[in-house]
Amino acid sequence: MMEKVKVYADRMSQPARAVLIFCRVNGIDFEEIKVDLSKRQHLSPEFREVNPLQKVPAIAHGTLNLSESHAILVYLASAFPGIADHWYPTDVSRRAKINSVLDWQHSNLRHGAVNYVVNTVLGPALGRPLNPKAAAEAEKVLSSSLSKLEHIWLNGDGPFLLGGFQPSIADLSLVCELMQLEVLDEKDRNRILSPYKKVLRWIEDTRTATNPHFEEMHNVLYRAKKKFQQERSRVAKTGTEPSNKLGGHSKM
Amino acid sequence: MMEKVKVYADRMSQPARAVLIFCRVNGIDFEEIKVDLSKRQHLSPEFREVNPLQKVPAIAHGTLNLSESHAILVYLASAFPGIADHWYPTDVSRRAKINSVLDWQHSNLRHGAVNYVVNTVLGPALGRPLNPKAAAEAEKVLSSSLSKLEHIWLNGDGPFLLGGFQPSIADLSLVCELMQLEVLDEKDRNRILSPYKKVLRWIEDTRTATNPHFEEMHNVLYRAKKKFQQERSRVAKTGTEPSNKLGGHSKM
Repeated sequence: MMEKVKVYADRMSQPARAVLIFCRVNGIDFEEIKVDLSKRQHLSPEFREVNPLQKVPAIAHGTLNLSESHAILVYLASAFPGIADHWYPTDVSRRAKINSVLDWQHSNLRHGAVNYVVNTVLGPALGRPLNPKAAAEAEKVLSSSLSKLEHIWLNGDGPFLLGGFQPSIADLSLVCELMQLEVLDEKDRNRILSPYKKVLRWIEDTRTATNPHFEEMHNVLYRAKKKFQQERSRVAKTGTEPSNKLGGHSKM
Repeated sequence: MMEKVKVYADRMSQPARAVLIFCRVNGIDFEEIKVDLSKRQHLSPEFREVNPLQKVPAIAHGTLNLSESHAILVYLASAFPGIADHWYPTDVSRRAKINSVLDWQHSNLRHGAVNYVVNTVLGPALGRPLNPKAAAEAEKVLSSSLSKLEHIWLNGDGPFLLGGFQPSIADLSLVCELMQLEVLDEKDRNRILSPYKKVLRWIEDTRTATNPHFEEMHNVLYRAKKKFQQERSRVAKTGTEPSNKLGGHSKM
């Protein structure tokens, strides 16, 4: 019998959600250990023992401590028996292409999405000043990444990345990345995503393929979205903040 | 017999150098096809057929076209017979740790090193304005990454990453990343690197373990370094450029 995996996660983190969903969908025996980022628990001495890089997600499995969500997904798909091959195919060429998409994600989709969200909605929530110039730059990276997703990575026979007919760890990882855009103002999210029809369909297909776990793990995000919306209406009604605070990135 | 690999590369690109050195060291039968970035050959329709993302390095092997240097190194180490196990160990935990370092490289060491070089030495060479603020931010990321290399990733028994006694693809990839700092002004390079004694030793150990190929593939960089130095002395002597142009990032 395999030892139980400890998954250190905050569900507000998109790569943490990807790892949790993967474990659930594949019936991996794991314990979810909350590392509350808002309480700065990732900086605690206890968590430092698990991951000296002080980031979530991280896992502990037997003597192995591992960080970086892609490496974790690859490990789980390889080390556990009975994980369906489509998640991380054993065929060396197919696996290579999945690795390639995952590597591409770092400096493209992740870079764009994270920086856009941080410099628009999340900034004020974290008490940081809005940075419309950084948001504009991030949107450029994000839109270019979405275009490549639509025209290159999703340009195959099946509904998933690289023409797959079933999802791989890359589908899960990239879709979770994009899901963070849920917290944006609706019109910003639509402006950014709506030109990419295949991408929108692919998000739905990945959601369907991994439900009910996908929705459960994203509940915290939907709650955050609601909170941000209420805050925006409050600001719009009472005018307690400078008018460019939430509309700054519309200047692009 | 394995089919010959086509490696599309410009030796001025650090991930391209990593792939070329790996092929040479491991006796992989390959053909190097130059994609001259300075002539914008990566944007040509011919290269687009090989890599629609229009970046080097890329490889073509049989029916497989592959981009992203990490995915390429993993593929070469897995698909070719006779590659020594230390490059990409078959042990699932050891392999997981190597994947983790490679993933970490993207948003940390690569992000810091590339942005620092582009916003100091390379900017003017490419006809772009210097950006001391961006250089300062990049140096922060770079220094933090070097500290993690020194105290976490190189904190093992052997001289290589994760305590290895022989190099892995992660050693090669990360050392090639750092080698681009060669083109910096000597005092900047020393200021940034000299606090990290293990890192400095590890660069030398990786160089030694992969020579003479390591030096051969870096010759183009040493020539570029000389050119930048000459340009700096010319500027210093003739004062043809604003005095903050090369010293801008000392403001941090």
